[in-house]
Amino acid sequence: MLNGIAYGGDYNPEQWPEEVWAEDMRLMSEAGVTMVSVGIFSWALLEPREGEYDFTLLDRVLDMLYAHGIAADLATPTAAPPAWFFRKYPEALPVDKDGRGLSYGSRQTFCPSSPAYREAALRMAGALGERYGDHPAVVMWHVHNEYGCHNAECFCEESAAAFRGWLRAKYGDDLAALNDAWGTRFWSQWYYDWDEIIPPRATGAVPNPTHQLDWRRFSSDALLSLYEAEREVLRAAAPEIPATTNFMVMHNFDALDYWRWAPKLDVVSNDHYLQSTDPESHIDLALSGDLVRSLAGGGPWLLMEHSTGAVNWQPVNRAKNPGELRRNALAHVARGADGIAYFQWRAAKAGAEQWHSAMLPHAGTDSQIWRDVVRLGADLRALAEVRGSTVPAQVAVVWDWDARWALELPSQPSAEVRYQELVRSWYEPLWRSGVAVDFVPPDADLSSYRLVLAPSLYLVDDEGAANLTGFAERGGTLALGFHSGAVDANCHVRLGGYPGAFRAALGVRTDELFPLLPGESVELDGGGSASVWSERVRLEGAEAVSTYARGPLDGVPAVTRNSFGAGTTWYVATRPDPTTLAALLDRMCADAGVLPVREVPEGVEAVLRRGADADYLFLINHTEGGAEIAVSVGATELLTGKPAPGAVTVGAGEVAVVREPRL
Amino acid sequence: MLNGIAYGGDYNPEQWPEEVWAEDMRLMSEAGVTMVSVGIFSWALLEPREGEYDFTLLDRVLDMLYAHGIAADLATPTAAPPAWFFRKYPEALPVDKDGRGLSYGSRQTFCPSSPAYREAALRMAGALGERYGDHPAVVMWHVHNEYGCHNAECFCEESAAAFRGWLRAKYGDDLAALNDAWGTRFWSQWYYDWDEIIPPRATGAVPNPTHQLDWRRFSSDALLSLYEAEREVLRAAAPEIPATTNFMVMHNFDALDYWRWAPKLDVVSNDHYLQSTDPESHIDLALSGDLVRSLAGGGPWLLMEHSTGAVNWQPVNRAKNPGELRRNALAHVARGADGIAYFQWRAAKAGAEQWHSAMLPHAGTDSQIWRDVVRLGADLRALAEVRGSTVPAQVAVVWDWDARWALELPSQPSAEVRYQELVRSWYEPLWRSGVAVDFVPPDADLSSYRLVLAPSLYLVDDEGAANLTGFAERGGTLALGFHSGAVDANCHVRLGGYPGAFRAALGVRTDELFPLLPGESVELDGGGSASVWSERVRLEGAEAVSTYARGPLDGVPAVTRNSFGAGTTWYVATRPDPTTLAALLDRMCADAGVLPVREVPEGVEAVLRRGADADYLFLINHTEGGAEIAVSVGATELLTGKPAPGAVTVGAGEVAVVREPRL
Amino acid sequence: MLNGIAYGGDYNPEQWPEEVWAEDMRLMSEAGVTMVSVGIFSWALLEPREGEYDFTLLDRVLDMLYAHGIAADLATPTAAPPAWFFRKYPEALPVDKDGRGLSYGSRQTFCPSSPAYREAALRMAGALGERYGDHPAVVMWHVHNEYGCHNAECFCEESAAAFRGWLRAKYGDDLAALNDAWGTRFWSQWYYDWDEIIPPRATGAVPNPTHQLDWRRFSSDALLSLYEAEREVLRAAAPEIPATTNFMVMHNFDALDYWRWAPKLDVVSNDHYLQSTDPESHIDLALSGDLVRSLAGGGPWLLMEHSTGAVNWQPVNRAKNPGELRRNALAHVARGADGIAYFQWRAAKAGAEQWHSAMLPHAGTDSQIWRDVVRLGADLRALAEVRGSTVPAQVAVVWDWDARWALELPSQPSAEVRYQELVRSWYEPLWRSGVAVDFVPPDADLSSYRLVLAPSLYLVDDEGAANLTGFAERGGTLALGFHSGAVDANCHVRLGGYPGAFRAALGVRTDELFPLLPGESVELDGGGSASVWSERVRLEGAEAVSTYARGPLDGVPAVTRNSFGAGTTWYVATRPDPTTLAALLDRMCADAGVLPVREVPEGVEAVLRRGADADYLFLINHTEGGAEIAVSVGATELLTGKPAPGAVTVGAGEVAVVREPRL
Repeated sequence: MLNGIAYGGDYNPEQWPEEVWAEDMRLMSEAGVTMVSVGIFSWALLEPREGEYDFTLLDRVLDMLYAHGIAADLATPTAAPPAWFFRKYPEALPVDKDGRGLSYGSRQTFCPSSPAYREAALRMAGALGERYGDHPAVVMWHVHNEYGCHNAECFCEESAAAFRGWLRAKYGDDLAALNDAWGTRFWSQWYYDWDEIIPPRATGAVPNPTHQLDWRRFSSDALLSLYEAEREVLRAAAPEIPATTNFMVMHNFDALDYWRWAPKLDVVSNDHYLQSTDPESHIDLALSGDLVRSLAGGGPWLLMEHSTGAVNWQPVNRAKNPGELRRNALAHVARGADGIAYFQWRAAKAGAEQWHSAMLPHAGTDSQIWRDVVRLGADLRALAEVRGSTVPAQVAVVWDWDARWALELPSQPSAEVRYQELVRSWYEPLWRSGVAVDFVPPDADLSSYRLVLAPSLYLVDDEGAANLTGFAERGGTLALGFHSGAVDANCHVRLGGYPGAFRAALGVRTDELFPLLPGESVELDGGGSASVWSERVRLEGAEAVSTYARGPLDGVPAVTRNSFGAGTTWYVATRPDPTTLAALLDRMCADAGVLPVREVPEGVEAVLRRGADADYLFLINHTEGGAEIAVSVGATELLTGKPAPGAVTVGAGEVAVVREPRL
Repeated sequence: MLNGIAYGGDYNPEQWPEEVWAEDMRLMSEAGVTMVSVGIFSWALLEPREGEYDFTLLDRVLDMLYAHGIAADLATPTAAPPAWFFRKYPEALPVDKDGRGLSYGSRQTFCPSSPAYREAALRMAGALGERYGDHPAVVMWHVHNEYGCHNAECFCEESAAAFRGWLRAKYGDDLAALNDAWGTRFWSQWYYDWDEIIPPRATGAVPNPTHQLDWRRFSSDALLSLYEAEREVLRAAAPEIPATTNFMVMHNFDALDYWRWAPKLDVVSNDHYLQSTDPESHIDLALSGDLVRSLAGGGPWLLMEHSTGAVNWQPVNRAKNPGELRRNALAHVARGADGIAYFQWRAAKAGAEQWHSAMLPHAGTDSQIWRDVVRLGADLRALAEVRGSTVPAQVAVVWDWDARWALELPSQPSAEVRYQELVRSWYEPLWRSGVAVDFVPPDADLSSYRLVLAPSLYLVDDEGAANLTGFAERGGTLALGFHSGAVDANCHVRLGGYPGAFRAALGVRTDELFPLLPGESVELDGGGSASVWSERVRLEGAEAVSTYARGPLDGVPAVTRNSFGAGTTWYVATRPDPTTLAALLDRMCADAGVLPVREVPEGVEAVLRRGADADYLFLINHTEGGAEIAVSVGATELLTGKPAPGAVTVGAGEVAVVREPRL
Repeated sequence: MLNGIAYGGDYNPEQWPEEVWAEDMRLMSEAGVTMVSVGIFSWALLEPREGEYDFTLLDRVLDMLYAHGIAADLATPTAAPPAWFFRKYPEALPVDKDGRGLSYGSRQTFCPSSPAYREAALRMAGALGERYGDHPAVVMWHVHNEYGCHNAECFCEESAAAFRGWLRAKYGDDLAALNDAWGTRFWSQWYYDWDEIIPPRATGAVPNPTHQLDWRRFSSDALLSLYEAEREVLRAAAPEIPATTNFMVMHNFDALDYWRWAPKLDVVSNDHYLQSTDPESHIDLALSGDLVRSLAGGGPWLLMEHSTGAVNWQPVNRAKNPGELRRNALAHVARGADGIAYFQWRAAKAGAEQWHSAMLPHAGTDSQIWRDVVRLGADLRALAEVRGSTVPAQVAVVWDWDARWALELPSQPSAEVRYQELVRSWYEPLWRSGVAVDFVPPDADLSSYRLVLAPSLYLVDDEGAANLTGFAERGGTLALGFHSGAVDANCHVRLGGYPGAFRAALGVRTDELFPLLPGESVELDGGGSASVWSERVRLEGAEAVSTYARGPLDGVPAVTRNSFGAGTTWYVATRPDPTTLAALLDRMCADAGVLPVREVPEGVEAVLRRGADADYLFLINHTEGGAEIAVSVGATELLTGKPAPGAVTVGAGEVAVVREPRL
């Protein structure tokens, strides 16, 4: 049913009387909606009593959608079990780290390792698969919703048992191996029996770091196993229908290792929301888009949820500025999205999300949001040919959830070091320059890149480290941020000097770390400054690019550069101020011969999707003035459909998408 | 026993050896004390074992008071059950939202819905009623103490059962009605059985807002039902003695819907304490006085507790400045109080409130506080004739606990919007101008007012909305603050544009809300600025009084004015800076023909009580310079007893009360 | 085995493969290590199953140490019971004030009053005593580790029973005495049965202060009783070997009343760590050193743990600046330490403390820390003769844990008043002046002092108060900080005016307290300012040294001085700014005829240890420039071994220790 860029949102007709549904169909057509997600929170209505199903609602809705030519992304409603379920199976409620049992009454408040939950969820998924596996409206399964959003971890006894099972599998039933991996000789933590192992619940002092890290890994896998189980049930019922589940790749969410998840999805999809306090939240959006595309193996992906205006779950929920809705949506398309969807179609008048914006706001169709939504529908139709094109990049940024989890464990040298913030600090200058970026795990095939950046890679296993240094050795340019390579896969410090895994490749050796206090900054000899972190780096072959100009590390290298094999390595042993960091990234790009997608004025975002026989240059103007950008002589601006021979003008706050035919 | 303005405090003789009591009597006489509250925390002494009473203490104290001509406001000691009670009935201890069971060891730590507590409390009240119902010293029952101060909510199983009972009554045993009212089709929250409903305990995400709102309503009613039950027992024993319970109308306390409580009291009384961090806490005091008087139906009320100096429960407890004790007490009288009482008579040397000030401080009678207390006694005697007079007002401010609770639920557009703060922001300029104010619920009879203000009325039911707009339609001036009328009695958003219930009357329509970030402010075209909130208001008949001069809403109306029927309506769609808001309120008063009580210099508070044949003008000088105020030629200043023909001078920090005979 | 200044650290060989141990021995010799603490966290390895011991590890390690001439401070490993223990005895896990049960998985997570824990710990201690009581390497028992570090309080039922036992002993089984002491007539808290008494668990309002205070006293004693029990078992096995346990006298730790502990130790030892956010943490170090020496009765003591660089448990963990390691260690020696030890010998690569610095860092011997450690070993050898010398002082500072606990209870006049901060504010100017200080409890023999300072003594019993005022009466100079003497040993306010216990001696009387808001300050007539606190002081014999120059207390004395008997008393009724306070302390020293150890430039710390026939003048230069200090003509600088006839030069950041022979 679908072609071009899909367009739609979550559709929850059960919140409204049936007479509203006809209006929904009419307005969806008006807006150009082509696909909606249905049934995400319908469990209580679909299964009024255990094992008894009532599909009246879904039957009606799916038939109606089909009749109007709208495809359905049919959800398993397993993110929100009904009240009757928890009343019958109270042990399926989650328990937090402090032993506090949570109650039902919102959503996603179940224990991921609960057998009762799993059984109920699979039965529900099976019933849906049976009934709708051949419904012509259903083009995709939307498995569950935002796995881990509120219940990423559960510390109950059932979770403890599941954790032990996961550990026995990981350590091959060898308890001594676990004891070694965790370093349990420290603080008398040796385990003599698997049953002694419990989740890292609240305890008097700091829990064992490897214990905590394995717990994070287990918790991600526990939810993944639920996804896989539901997906299997659906596959058995309807082998042809692809499945997705909506990721949450955005600012603070870090519960799931999506590198492990993504290969299990037929279609990668993501939810992204702007953070009101971030004045440049479109950069987080871009980062998220690049990361999701990378999770999807470079291939297209779907934006499953974002917002037309304010959300409702931040302390203050900012509305969008004029044009921002359009810029946001097209920026996602620019970064590889082949579908744009919102939470939700029609703004709720009751319930916890009554103040979340929607495609059809409380005010109805006489509203700016509705007008923007209709315009966006037309825009997406105009971009139909972009579908399936890809985003080429010469730069890879290493992103790793294991490294993030380990870095942010308690009892680190500094709690000021935050993974997301560090990666973004390196991503920002590249975004400003229009340099295209993929994200990769440490063990990725890097052969297609010229420059590999690892802004933060505290934990890296031996294979990952070898892969990265090998890339440099074979001629690539590799840059590492401070405190990288410090620990191995078990979170054990690599001895002999920092940055453990990368000393040889970087040509440096640090004997002691000097984290900086909040608010403290140190001058650099080049005139810039640095904060958050410093190290006593000694050159062992590398050259100093920048040194500290004051303080206890006066004269010590802050940034180094080294020739390694056929390539070049950089070590950024501190957090430089943004201007300094941007200059460093410029030099790294120069080292690697990396060029931006297009020369553009400051504040104009340029992204390129490569199609079979044309390039699509997305130009998003975040400034308050117009900008003229040179394009090829045979170019066409797709949103207007007008030729753009040699140049295109993008008005303040506007977007242009230029088709440049390839010869 | 009482006439004139009552004067006294909480009297806890059990804290002291009996030899101290005689001194108490002597000093009470010296200070002019006429009534004390007795027995508030005496349960453990009065009932040493379950069902066994020991009234020795109270017998002695009441006889002694009577012998000295001091009336007793006799308390039921049910705010603090003894340790033996909780040891026998541990299920009567409260449980918080996180499932944490609280322990005894302070006070007011019982579950409001506990049958065991209710039985014990009523038995205690009955025994007191029996014994003292005809004691000549007892002029009033002081039922319990500060209901809800520490245990406004309990989430235990007994509370859950009581909540279900309350809901069945409210929804007429119709579970579908509850499901509709709560919007439980959202997030799969549908209930199939009453027993599935539990309190809004800690859950993974945000609980259902209507669930939370009904919970607040239930929690207030659960305590009210305890009050009513005790009152019934006392009435049965002593039908003639009036009853009160001390409210807590002040800054942050919001647990009880006092509009529902006040009609059940024979005498309305209140506790008020200053907030140390508030440099103008006398404005909160005045607001509180006006609100309590309004709860009392305009009639006199009693100030049951305030402090002579510092309290002990704030982070830093400020003492009072010179003259402040007197200004505070007389400001309460000015706003309608016919009695002034303190916590407590004699400063405790032990226990949790040992650092709370009292009428007789630790330092004894050679102290400023004691001298001030004695002087105040003389002042109050000089004001005897004021008793029973009322406070006329032409302005009504809408105050509604339902609206407050709903506004401050989680997942609103902005957590920066606080009810008390908004109402006070409108109240302040009126206070500075000397404009008298009543508070009213939305469905009040408004016929006696010229101007009705609703600074914040997020939730309003249809009847309340019609009452307010009808007031304007019939010729009144009505002003509404932003985000008013947004939801109905079930907390469902009123669709079609904001401010839902008031669009027609205001002649405006908002299609989207633009809350502002903390610290953010927007310029207004008149030169002022606005913060906290903005909306995209479109005029539909109204005129723009002020518009935004920058930002995404440049040129959009911020404040509007409309002719509606025979009257005028205003919409203040943002939070203007104080100067701008004061100017707006001046214009509204001018629209409505509202005048201040008297023209006074900045910082002099003017309030008028109207007696049978004279007006009493209270002039409270909060400044550091003297002020001369014009009064009628036949006036007398009561505190000095001197004639004040045509003018009175009020010294810096001083107070004058001027009798102006009415012709 | 030991002579001179002991040197070493915690040695945890079980964390490393046996091949590393030989290197440890070699490097310890290189560094001059003479004593290590062994076995602190070895329980899980030493007792793999209940009652079954495996001493292989310890046998090997102790023999090896002995063979290398290194003494062992052998620990009982009872701070970290193994997982098997808690799985068998889950009731031995602690419960916090909110009823939250903690889990095992870190360390020190046991209930101090658990019979199961006590039995297991004593059995373990007994087994160690039996096996190693005559091992030649063992020179001292290191009982447990940092008692109370994570489990100073437990609120479980077993703790409740122990608390009741402690109370029955304290109050001689007289429940009425407890009710009087706690003031339980307040808030209906009277107890009719001992079993009604529970720990001060979370309750609706503020718990009774005396209840809380007795709870702090009990909690300290509960741990002390564990120490004494282990010590008894060890004494039975090896009567000759002295025992210590490492105190934690440093900034925020306040759980234990070390005045009660110290007499039970054969050797007093302490752990001290710098606070990263404190730019002058060496002053906290000095204060700690003086306090520990005072706990040791003036005699030598051991520094059992400090760090060579960063710790890992603060939010940001600062490394040490050049020379700081050496200055820190020698400052401890200067204040009486006869041994310097670190946590730990070899930096861990795994476990919760993997980022804590050590003598041998992750980087190995090619590191600044290792070079500093080796140099320090040489320094300490050069100071061997200092061993056993003492630190004479003419000034005593009153330090009292009871007063600290009481002061920091909730519901005080101001939560801004912090004990440690107040004492340090008085200590700092003395430190800067080089005035030597002892710490004393209120009832100490004061006859050897000229000046006694009590910066904060909120609670003082009658004997303590009489001891202090008697000191002044007999000719001494006594200075008290604000809010002193306010309450008695039961935390009851002393009536009649503040500062209760000291009014007569100070010649002042305060009738009301005026705490200042955070950020508020008041001018003093002398040009300085004051913050945190003020009082309305009236002179009753004293003279005003300084008065407030503004605000409600304009003209009221802020600092007073009085002649009392043959001596002088001062009252500092506020918190003066540092410059003003320093000037006041100068005047007090002048009053008392107290002189600094030596005239030194600003920033040079001067401390003197007095040996049998020579003085040892420690000069620690904290500045960035060199300093020349006059010494006696026969002096020798010990670290260099060079004569210093009449003067010594101490380079920037350097230390000199000058032997001055006494005639």
